[in-house]
Amino acid sequence: VSNVPLPLRDAVRPTTWIESTRLSRRLGANVTIASETFQRTGSFKFRAAYNVAASVPQLRIITASSGNFGQALACACQLLDKSCTIVMPETSARVKVNAVREFGGVVDLIDVTKITRKARVEQLASKDPDAFVASAYDHPLVIEGSASLGVEIAERGQRFDCVLAPLGGGGLTAGVITGLRKSGNSVSVIAVEPVLANDGARSFRAGQLLANESEPQTVADGVRTISIGQHNWKILQKELADVIEVTEEHIIESTRLLFDHANLKAEPTGALAIAALLSAPDRFRGRNICCVISGGNVDPEVFFRIVATH
Amino acid sequence: VSNVPLPLRDAVRPTTWIESTRLSRRLGANVTIASETFQRTGSFKFRAAYNVAASVPQLRIITASSGNFGQALACACQLLDKSCTIVMPETSARVKVNAVREFGGVVDLIDVTKITRKARVEQLASKDPDAFVASAYDHPLVIEGSASLGVEIAERGQRFDCVLAPLGGGGLTAGVITGLRKSGNSVSVIAVEPVLANDGARSFRAGQLLANESEPQTVADGVRTISIGQHNWKILQKELADVIEVTEEHIIESTRLLFDHANLKAEPTGALAIAALLSAPDRFRGRNICCVISGGNVDPEVFFRIVATH
Repeated sequence: VSNVPLPLRDAVRPTTWIESTRLSRRLGANVTIASETFQRTGSFKFRAAYNVAASVPQLRIITASSGNFGQALACACQLLDKSCTIVMPETSARVKVNAVREFGGVVDLIDVTKITRKARVEQLASKDPDAFVASAYDHPLVIEGSASLGVEIAERGQRFDCVLAPLGGGGLTAGVITGLRKSGNSVSVIAVEPVLANDGARSFRAGQLLANESEPQTVADGVRTISIGQHNWKILQKELADVIEVTEEHIIESTRLLFDHANLKAEPTGALAIAALLSAPDRFRGRNICCVISGGNVDPEVFFRIVATH
Repeated sequence: VSNVPLPLRDAVRPTTWIESTRLSRRLGANVTIASETFQRTGSFKFRAAYNVAASVPQLRIITASSGNFGQALACACQLLDKSCTIVMPETSARVKVNAVREFGGVVDLIDVTKITRKARVEQLASKDPDAFVASAYDHPLVIEGSASLGVEIAERGQRFDCVLAPLGGGGLTAGVITGLRKSGNSVSVIAVEPVLANDGARSFRAGQLLANESEPQTVADGVRTISIGQHNWKILQKELADVIEVTEEHIIESTRLLFDHANLKAEPTGALAIAALLSAPDRFRGRNICCVISGGNVDPEVFFRIVATH
């Protein structure tokens, strides 16, 4: 019996629904938050990581992640009695390295000026051919994992005019759309990304997948991706209603607004959906908006520095 | 139809259940959080305020509160189409004054070196005999309102070894006990208060109601009460399992732990239950503990100052 993994639905924590009168009044829209900040390991990534780790037959998993996916995968592997190695830059925040280790993950620190994360993962994989190499955002199992959030949004049974969610590699938005559609819900899903990392908006307008030239230096560090994943793009190209680009100032203001008006600690990436309401207030005025807050993992000092100075 | 107020159960937002693996591991106990930080107006006080405002026949309500009860009462009155006046010291944080006004409450600012809050409330009441004068923490309707949280804890159906909750005027703990017992649940309820404001612990030991000599200057500003309310004391004297006193250092560390390990923004008062686990780790090791987080309303700057320097 101990070899049968918990179904995804039982392993994940349900999303946290938050309504804040003060926040809605400030934004001029009727905002309902689906917060993944209290998900296992503090971000929606656990949904994807658990689905990957529970679905593949391999007992060892290798991935590269300096952020939420690494911690999520370590937690998932611990629950599933598997092992994992997370390749991280040696400059990663100590708190993120420690979080992976707390969940029993092996951290492989690299000097990114000497070897890329991808190359190091390939090196580790060639030494351990029985291990599964996991992508943080471009795999059908990642989409299927994140789809569980779309199903929860559909099951809430609330009539939303649209769902807003952060866009980086596209695993979250592709997953939310997949889950909603699987549940027979056709609500518009709008992706939100920083102007500084607008490969998604440019791809959406061009009708083809475009990449950033280098890792974008937005404060929203969860969406510092070079491009949307291929698997995600196939879904987003067809189903995404729009992509809204937001400024760094609006991302920071949103992080502060969530903290101050809704008592919600979000990481800057998590606040992107709120930033879209600040960017395009007329478009959403008086509407019923579901805002997906993707995660809340940010060091106190970093959070204070971001929020306090604005 | 519009004159029939929403029943309390439908007016309040259900408490937010949060489990954090990292927090539980850090504290050495299996902690389940019942968080009132996402309650209407950000604290459990809405439960009490709504029950008072919805139950009394008067259309105008007067109270003194520089904190969460004022904002909660203003919100409740707005929902119920009643009006209210909140007496506040003119030194109150601007954000608290604004929050009351945002909900349509009239703020009556006083110079507390010239007139006490109580005297000013009596002055206002004598000018407006049709108004109801509400106590923030000592009235059967306050207990009945807070009892709705106890009912929710019982309805979760989880076996807890004990429930920990902050103790100030006693409205929360008396209410939680009342709701639990009404639901047939006999779980131990333990109150937590700062060493600096230990009238509750002293009263519990003495078997009689004792007061602080002056307003205690604890960082947990929600429990800076002179003494427990008479109505609450009758219940607490019989039903409370214990009172745990915690240091200022543990209150601050708990506020930070909740933020860092569980992504939860709590006001220092809200973190008292966690501080009890830091104070008496052996007593709770390995146990299933329900920690009530009473509220999350704290200015970003104040929060950062408290948390960042420790």
